[in-house]
Amino acid sequence: MAPTLNILERLDAGEIVIGDGGFVFALEKRGYVKAGPWTPEAAAEHPEAVRQLHREFLRSGSNVMQTFTFYASDDKLENRGNAQRFTGAQINEAACDLAREVANEGDAMVAGGVSQTPSYLSCKSEAEVKGIFKRQLNVFVKKNVDFMIAEYFEHVEEAEWAVQVLKTSGKPVCASLCIGPDGDLNGVSPGDCAVRLVKAGANIVGINCHFDPMICVKTVKMMKEGVERAGLKAHYMVQPLAYHTPDCNCQGFIDLPEFPFGLEPRILTRWDMHKYAREAFNVGIRFIGGCCGFEPYHIRAVAEELATERGYLPAASVKHGNWGAGLEMHTKPWVRARARRDYWEKLKPASGRPKCPAMSTPDSWGVTKGHADLMQHKEATSLDELKPLFEKAKASQ
Amino acid sequence: MAPTLNILERLDAGEIVIGDGGFVFALEKRGYVKAGPWTPEAAAEHPEAVRQLHREFLRSGSNVMQTFTFYASDDKLENRGNAQRFTGAQINEAACDLAREVANEGDAMVAGGVSQTPSYLSCKSEAEVKGIFKRQLNVFVKKNVDFMIAEYFEHVEEAEWAVQVLKTSGKPVCASLCIGPDGDLNGVSPGDCAVRLVKAGANIVGINCHFDPMICVKTVKMMKEGVERAGLKAHYMVQPLAYHTPDCNCQGFIDLPEFPFGLEPRILTRWDMHKYAREAFNVGIRFIGGCCGFEPYHIRAVAEELATERGYLPAASVKHGNWGAGLEMHTKPWVRARARRDYWEKLKPASGRPKCPAMSTPDSWGVTKGHADLMQHKEATSLDELKPLFEKAKASQ
Amino acid sequence: MAPTLNILERLDAGEIVIGDGGFVFALEKRGYVKAGPWTPEAAAEHPEAVRQLHREFLRSGSNVMQTFTFYASDDKLENRGNAQRFTGAQINEAACDLAREVANEGDAMVAGGVSQTPSYLSCKSEAEVKGIFKRQLNVFVKKNVDFMIAEYFEHVEEAEWAVQVLKTSGKPVCASLCIGPDGDLNGVSPGDCAVRLVKAGANIVGINCHFDPMICVKTVKMMKEGVERAGLKAHYMVQPLAYHTPDCNCQGFIDLPEFPFGLEPRILTRWDMHKYAREAFNVGIRFIGGCCGFEPYHIRAVAEELATERGYLPAASVKHGNWGAGLEMHTKPWVRARARRDYWEKLKPASGRPKCPAMSTPDSWGVTKGHADLMQHKEATSLDELKPLFEKAKASQ
Amino acid sequence: MAPTLNILERLDAGEIVIGDGGFVFALEKRGYVKAGPWTPEAAAEHPEAVRQLHREFLRSGSNVMQTFTFYASDDKLENRGNAQRFTGAQINEAACDLAREVANEGDAMVAGGVSQTPSYLSCKSEAEVKGIFKRQLNVFVKKNVDFMIAEYFEHVEEAEWAVQVLKTSGKPVCASLCIGPDGDLNGVSPGDCAVRLVKAGANIVGINCHFDPMICVKTVKMMKEGVERAGLKAHYMVQPLAYHTPDCNCQGFIDLPEFPFGLEPRILTRWDMHKYAREAFNVGIRFIGGCCGFEPYHIRAVAEELATERGYLPAASVKHGNWGAGLEMHTKPWVRARARRDYWEKLKPASGRPKCPAMSTPDSWGVTKGHADLMQHKEATSLDELKPLFEKAKASQ
Repeated sequence: MAPTLNILERLDAGEIVIGDGGFVFALEKRGYVKAGPWTPEAAAEHPEAVRQLHREFLRSGSNVMQTFTFYASDDKLENRGNAQRFTGAQINEAACDLAREVANEGDAMVAGGVSQTPSYLSCKSEAEVKGIFKRQLNVFVKKNVDFMIAEYFEHVEEAEWAVQVLKTSGKPVCASLCIGPDGDLNGVSPGDCAVRLVKAGANIVGINCHFDPMICVKTVKMMKEGVERAGLKAHYMVQPLAYHTPDCNCQGFIDLPEFPFGLEPRILTRWDMHKYAREAFNVGIRFIGGCCGFEPYHIRAVAEELATERGYLPAASVKHGNWGAGLEMHTKPWVRARARRDYWEKLKPASGRPKCPAMSTPDSWGVTKGHADLMQHKEATSLDELKPLFEKAKASQ
Repeated sequence: MAPTLNILERLDAGEIVIGDGGFVFALEKRGYVKAGPWTPEAAAEHPEAVRQLHREFLRSGSNVMQTFTFYASDDKLENRGNAQRFTGAQINEAACDLAREVANEGDAMVAGGVSQTPSYLSCKSEAEVKGIFKRQLNVFVKKNVDFMIAEYFEHVEEAEWAVQVLKTSGKPVCASLCIGPDGDLNGVSPGDCAVRLVKAGANIVGINCHFDPMICVKTVKMMKEGVERAGLKAHYMVQPLAYHTPDCNCQGFIDLPEFPFGLEPRILTRWDMHKYAREAFNVGIRFIGGCCGFEPYHIRAVAEELATERGYLPAASVKHGNWGAGLEMHTKPWVRARARRDYWEKLKPASGRPKCPAMSTPDSWGVTKGHADLMQHKEATSLDELKPLFEKAKASQ
Repeated sequence: MAPTLNILERLDAGEIVIGDGGFVFALEKRGYVKAGPWTPEAAAEHPEAVRQLHREFLRSGSNVMQTFTFYASDDKLENRGNAQRFTGAQINEAACDLAREVANEGDAMVAGGVSQTPSYLSCKSEAEVKGIFKRQLNVFVKKNVDFMIAEYFEHVEEAEWAVQVLKTSGKPVCASLCIGPDGDLNGVSPGDCAVRLVKAGANIVGINCHFDPMICVKTVKMMKEGVERAGLKAHYMVQPLAYHTPDCNCQGFIDLPEFPFGLEPRILTRWDMHKYAREAFNVGIRFIGGCCGFEPYHIRAVAEELATERGYLPAASVKHGNWGAGLEMHTKPWVRARARRDYWEKLKPASGRPKCPAMSTPDSWGVTKGHADLMQHKEATSLDELKPLFEKAKASQ
Repeated sequence: MAPTLNILERLDAGEIVIGDGGFVFALEKRGYVKAGPWTPEAAAEHPEAVRQLHREFLRSGSNVMQTFTFYASDDKLENRGNAQRFTGAQINEAACDLAREVANEGDAMVAGGVSQTPSYLSCKSEAEVKGIFKRQLNVFVKKNVDFMIAEYFEHVEEAEWAVQVLKTSGKPVCASLCIGPDGDLNGVSPGDCAVRLVKAGANIVGINCHFDPMICVKTVKMMKEGVERAGLKAHYMVQPLAYHTPDCNCQGFIDLPEFPFGLEPRILTRWDMHKYAREAFNVGIRFIGGCCGFEPYHIRAVAEELATERGYLPAASVKHGNWGAGLEMHTKPWVRARARRDYWEKLKPASGRPKCPAMSTPDSWGVTKGHADLMQHKEATSLDELKPLFEKAKASQ
């Protein structure tokens, strides 16, 4: 069954659209993506793995199959220095085909995705950066995706440029930043960012990645307030981390010492996801999904929390009792006693790690962009070596 | 390439055999297994999902494709009350086919698996319980698996019965208990359990599930010491949880308040797995795998830690830098500074959950089997109702 | 040796004045003050205990002996329902005598203290409340204290009234609120509070009690910025808790579940005090002391951190090696290795309580004053009973 | 009122005898003892401070005033290298006078105390070590203390020597080791240690210092079982730390990284003390007191828990509501709701330190005595320097 309405018609009609989860992190754990480069060549190399993950999210309730094209711009693929067996176009095309194939197995839309570019970070011209986006867009138009998402931007300016390019396709455009309540890396507030993105042509604005669900929802709320204050209209989206990050600074989880190989203790439970989904809904967000760390069962929990509003459960709920009801037949009565909502809502899950703390100190507290010397220090092998540069950078802020 | 040697020849030759990870937990998160029943009908219902998971473990270094037949005995499948669309035989056969298909894609053996039965727990006769195992074994013989694993037994007696049945196939037999250093649920010590299993005919003995890697390795060490004290010979295996469980009582993670839907903060990192693999190797264990919680990247970490001894890296290591080396090209120098072994070995990962403790109190501290009234209390909806029964049970011990 | 300069002359000369610690909490642990009423009748009942505590603070570096007259207003003493063996005047006079006796043993000033009154909370008139303060002031004038402190006020209005009364004595007046960065219980910001207090005649303004040192220093900084923005002049003081309270809401540690009998894990170390003293000094605060939880060794740590600026160590430092230097002669080399600043500055002290969290949820999150029904609910024996009232109160904010 | 019965008559009659708390730690915080040397010259230098602390413990329910003579042997006083203003005899005599003065204010006995000596550690002869004890004993006999305590011994042999000397006085003798369940530093089990001490003439045996209350009670239980197995008779005592130490190795809290200046988060609450007192009583211990970390309110909690058995509350309970009853008149209903036993028994107090762990790793895991090179390494300024020696020492065990 193909979707009968496009995303804007759905959102205008008050429907809740559920996004998918984080492909690069999930596929890293499955052995198909390399942490560090994070590039999506698996779309071409191992289509069965990517197809399977799409299918799991579809079963879990996702209405959007996002093409697995994160960091698939030509400059990024080159920049990573890998001798790729596939061209950027091949990867982008394979990703579109996989997303469409699975979307057609259910009621899902295909969203083509672009993300921040090395070209912008290295101060290339607006024309050059837009050229990068345009090359990716050509594939998405050729493959006739249903709508476009510009996501994972730390600078609102680059996101505006992306939106302007994507708008040329005539398709609905989402713009999603990876920022928190403190705003983008130039200090532009979430409200002001949202206004600029809507003015640039975005139909849906919001936040993805870098922060935990509650921080992301709070930031989208600030965006919404900004848009409304400006007398503009938009829809809102959120696709946060599935990691608790109360200790992040303005640059999000990248700067936490646990990134990216020690984040396990921070993973949200399915019950944390219920709270997230409810809070996002209450704030007025209607495109609700996930980013790094989201596994299929996290998306299913979002869909289950909103099942009443949506009118149905996702397919994968056939393998999931409501609020732990699957435990009702356990042989031990004290395990059966866990088969209820109240139990899981109140549980404060232990880490099993008594020698570990609850919070970390981000590596780069207060050091943001514009510190060329720090960012260019290529040979550092320890933080101690960087300390003088940190101090200098902080002092200059 | 099919394996040229069977598991005993490999172990006799000093080879390290790497097992796979936990199918029921991994597939629960992917939407194909229901927590509570934990039955493996997905082998017949959704073969593509099971095949993909086998493949990920193969890529990660597993030499053993265990048939996805956990809890697939006829009495268990019935007992769960699900109107199954598939018979037990269909599920067991489908599982064998999938394991063989993927094993043939690499250098892996197929192991047929049986596990503890409701029949034993409800005190059926030895003949009845053995009949259950025999029916499953018929499938494994028909499908010509390479060897057999009797695993997840809490009572050594039931494991002995299983071993005796499996031995009739003429295939190598592994016997793996889900117990800790305190012994089986009748208090038989790990050393004595191991001796009984070897005497029953097991070629390889060890531990799986219920406890974290370090506790499991310690328990296998006790088994090994018992076998050696008795002047017997055996090989050893370990397939632990991928959850930290320092706070478990004798019944393992089942009794932790977080089981099974709040275990996320306890998940081991890949670096924890390096320590586990090294410790298991040092203790003399040569069949090293995983159980609940193990994802493909956990098995890859085991294979990477033992790469020198084994002489090669697994296929999926092409997507994984050595000790975080993939971060060497990160744009931020303080993230690049994490691209080294020392960093990850010393990291004490934070939970991001300041309102949660590091350890829990198991629900049933000190209450084990033989307390019929407590175990039969079918209608309990809260632990408070059970409290008097707990007290009584504890007092009687 | 009596002090040769009064507090304003000292502060005007750039001197650092070190306050004392928290008498009610320290004497509660010693068995002389009852938690709940917190009244200071020990000044009359057990003068030897109060004298000894004064002497310990003097030895530790305190330049101020604050009369032990907290909650010693007549309405508070009556209100507590204790059949007192001593009149309010007797208690206040005894407290003055003890403070003067010990102050004369060193270079210390005596400060008479008044604090918030039940009369204000129960909405008595300005004249009535001022009458309460006046009666206490009469004693302080009679006993010729060196200056006055109005402290522990949650409402700036009551503090203004106190300052106006105290000013009539002609002595220097300090005004100290027990509020955090969110302002007083009517929401008046710290900056605005400070301006009002200075305009009412306070010479020194600041914060005491209710929050941890870093939060208090931050709040005084906000007061200082307010005063400077208003073109006014003042000196600044801070006397915080010796408990870590990152999880407080606007009403401070009273609302933490641990108050007052489970605060032990939050107690600051002496090394935490070094950081506090340095930060307070850097912000421009020159009257630096402590409140609840401060023991003599905490004040000594403040004096040791500022020894260079002050030009001398306190008497009690003869019993304290610099940064752990006393360990240099320990028999174990790994204990000797702790005899250095770097070790203690970096130490993250463990709680030894793996089943306890790092943070709590305050009981009354977001419920502040003006909710008569909640505050009047006299018979509650559990929080569950109060829940509907909480909800109602929160909803109405 | 002087005590009418000596300690053995009291214990024989089934009475509970409550000890006092930890003088060196309490007086260190008050500014009269130097951490590192830990010597008790304050008895002579600042008698008012020592007298006041005795008095507070008396008020809190202590039946024993232990002379403040810890580490007051001549070899220890010299060894610390301090140019003492007082001779060892002067210090020991002053301590006896203070203890007797306060004991006579209530129903308390005076106990003279000796503790481990540098002479034993440096392998002096039995005669020399006994000579040290004899010199202290002479003072205690002259001052006519009521009984003797040999405490804080890590080697049972030295404790036996002390007992043999103390027995010559004809007074009752207690022998208390600072060991845990693993036994003394030569690996002699608690049960065997107890048997040897009873055979040496000790009337009361037990444990003090180094471990938390529950570990100490468990160790005394092992001692009692040993004595009973041997067909001997004794009374039992316990005077543990007031710090939680679940992470200690065999040498106790000395080896924790927090010792001695970062132990605050581990301090027991008064409610923890109720559990301790009850457990000690249940195990059959009748001389129940405290060591390092115990403040007067901790001893009061012990006395309050056992008030029913003893038939009376201590004097200081007039300043303490039963199980938080003092909060019943608090103005906030949610604070009033804490005025009950159930609340405090269930509370899991937060540390307020989200960047700190719950447990530490002892510095010297598994390295005990007999490693001369490690113990003699005098110049180490960091643990890194010691690492090779640690490794060597561990390898040789």
